[in-house]
Amino acid sequence: MSDLSHGAAWMDGRILPISEASIGVTDWGVTHSDIAYDVVPVWGGAFFRLEDYLERFLASVASQRMDILMDAGEVQGALHEMVAASGLKGAYVSMVAARGRNPVPGSRDPRDCQNHFYAWCVPYVHIVKPDAADRGTTVWIAKSVRRIPQDSVNPRVKNYHWGDFTSGLFEAKDKGFETTMLLDHEGNVTEGPGFNVFAVFGDRVVTSEHGVLHGITRRTVLEMATARGLTVETRPLPLDELQEADEVFLSSSGGGVIPVVQVDERRFSNGAPGPVARALRQTYFEWLEEPRFRSPIRYD
Amino acid sequence: MSDLSHGAAWMDGRILPISEASIGVTDWGVTHSDIAYDVVPVWGGAFFRLEDYLERFLASVASQRMDILMDAGEVQGALHEMVAASGLKGAYVSMVAARGRNPVPGSRDPRDCQNHFYAWCVPYVHIVKPDAADRGTTVWIAKSVRRIPQDSVNPRVKNYHWGDFTSGLFEAKDKGFETTMLLDHEGNVTEGPGFNVFAVFGDRVVTSEHGVLHGITRRTVLEMATARGLTVETRPLPLDELQEADEVFLSSSGGGVIPVVQVDERRFSNGAPGPVARALRQTYFEWLEEPRFRSPIRYD
Repeated sequence: MSDLSHGAAWMDGRILPISEASIGVTDWGVTHSDIAYDVVPVWGGAFFRLEDYLERFLASVASQRMDILMDAGEVQGALHEMVAASGLKGAYVSMVAARGRNPVPGSRDPRDCQNHFYAWCVPYVHIVKPDAADRGTTVWIAKSVRRIPQDSVNPRVKNYHWGDFTSGLFEAKDKGFETTMLLDHEGNVTEGPGFNVFAVFGDRVVTSEHGVLHGITRRTVLEMATARGLTVETRPLPLDELQEADEVFLSSSGGGVIPVVQVDERRFSNGAPGPVARALRQTYFEWLEEPRFRSPIRYD
Repeated sequence: MSDLSHGAAWMDGRILPISEASIGVTDWGVTHSDIAYDVVPVWGGAFFRLEDYLERFLASVASQRMDILMDAGEVQGALHEMVAASGLKGAYVSMVAARGRNPVPGSRDPRDCQNHFYAWCVPYVHIVKPDAADRGTTVWIAKSVRRIPQDSVNPRVKNYHWGDFTSGLFEAKDKGFETTMLLDHEGNVTEGPGFNVFAVFGDRVVTSEHGVLHGITRRTVLEMATARGLTVETRPLPLDELQEADEVFLSSSGGGVIPVVQVDERRFSNGAPGPVARALRQTYFEWLEEPRFRSPIRYD
């Protein structure tokens, strides 16, 4: 078997090197971006909150009216087998349901397509490099685009419709910022490419409820915040209000809690990560190690 | 070489059977639906309006800040070579630019990706089966979704962000309608999966200008309408106004002009294609044969 240490995939029951894993160019997963997916982190040789990620993934698949012909146990088995084969102790693990090809000649009916499941993993991804995250990152509010509204594409089903994020990322990179954050059409902060957004006001932590993915890391943050005695508010977050926050931070299964030191021209907490974000970041890495959240992988 | 009569692809300079053509699962073309594409019809052994389609495709690629390292002549050569190899005299030919993989470890910067071009063709696709199109088709106005707004994803760059269309198609098929049409957030008619929409009022033909693809077949329709002495209006088309039209029809490079006999519960022109739609449908098939629009393929 080829080297799988750069990543592996599970396709139709076979384990492949990531570089050989591909999807057909006429699959609706490509031509209609008709995909539901989820990403679960592997940390220190164990999946983190695997049941929670699996539950969300299968709910997404059902809501998209796909039938991948595998149950939760079989998906879980595929993920374990793939990561074990890769040998990766820290990994970013993607589980994907695709609409598939439409085998009926001339059919444009999504109900005719042959849905299928695949998965892939690569070494753990930090959406912001760890040293940059420790120092606090910078975020550009996209000016040329607004987040795709939830009555066009449901953001609670994790999906690959990233055109708005990519436009925002180009803007951010051109301006010298690390990443981008998008507003909805009412001027509220939504989310960015791969993360949810939080604002801290004293002992209150605010994050958007609508028009965003309900990320598992977002949930973990809300649980950690509650455990620390902070008050949690899930509601619309206008940009003007975010800019008045004591602290801003991001959450992602690719790096946990990421402090933000700058949004556009506004600098937060004197350009250093604030105490709440720092504490939650630390706690997240501790929780990654807690047995109650871990599904250890048998690498043999 | 395998049988290419079911379709062929051009990938990295090689011609493959369509069933073997695929794209990597970590290509941003998949994971971010970061693709610009176009579709040109082949009819009777010749491309139709190839220069127009190519011009739009390359403008889309440039607007997405992709560099596919091929010029117009090379793309044209690839398309000719591929269709000739397939032997298909009538084909649906897709040219695709994908953002590609990001080879820089840890990079989330779209500017680092290795953009690439590929193409594929299959036997000519009618988005509505020809006999159904001759009788006039039925269209359901999607109720659960609105078209992705143009300030989220630019619809003038032909793209694979079809989540809104797919939701609408499920609704339509469940209701027993052939296809779907989406409204914008102001209640205007936009477009459907693979087509533009027209309403006829006496000698006036109205179609939306904003929030829609400026399809080449749409352009052909506007030219044919003008040549017939009809007045053309490109402007917002409220649903209420569409429902008062004498006739409604669709335009697509997959079937030309397609008369509509029903939109939701409203039936048009006594349930038969109207005279303007019928005439334009006829003219479209005539124009497909006109030498001024044709780039013949040398099949040898």
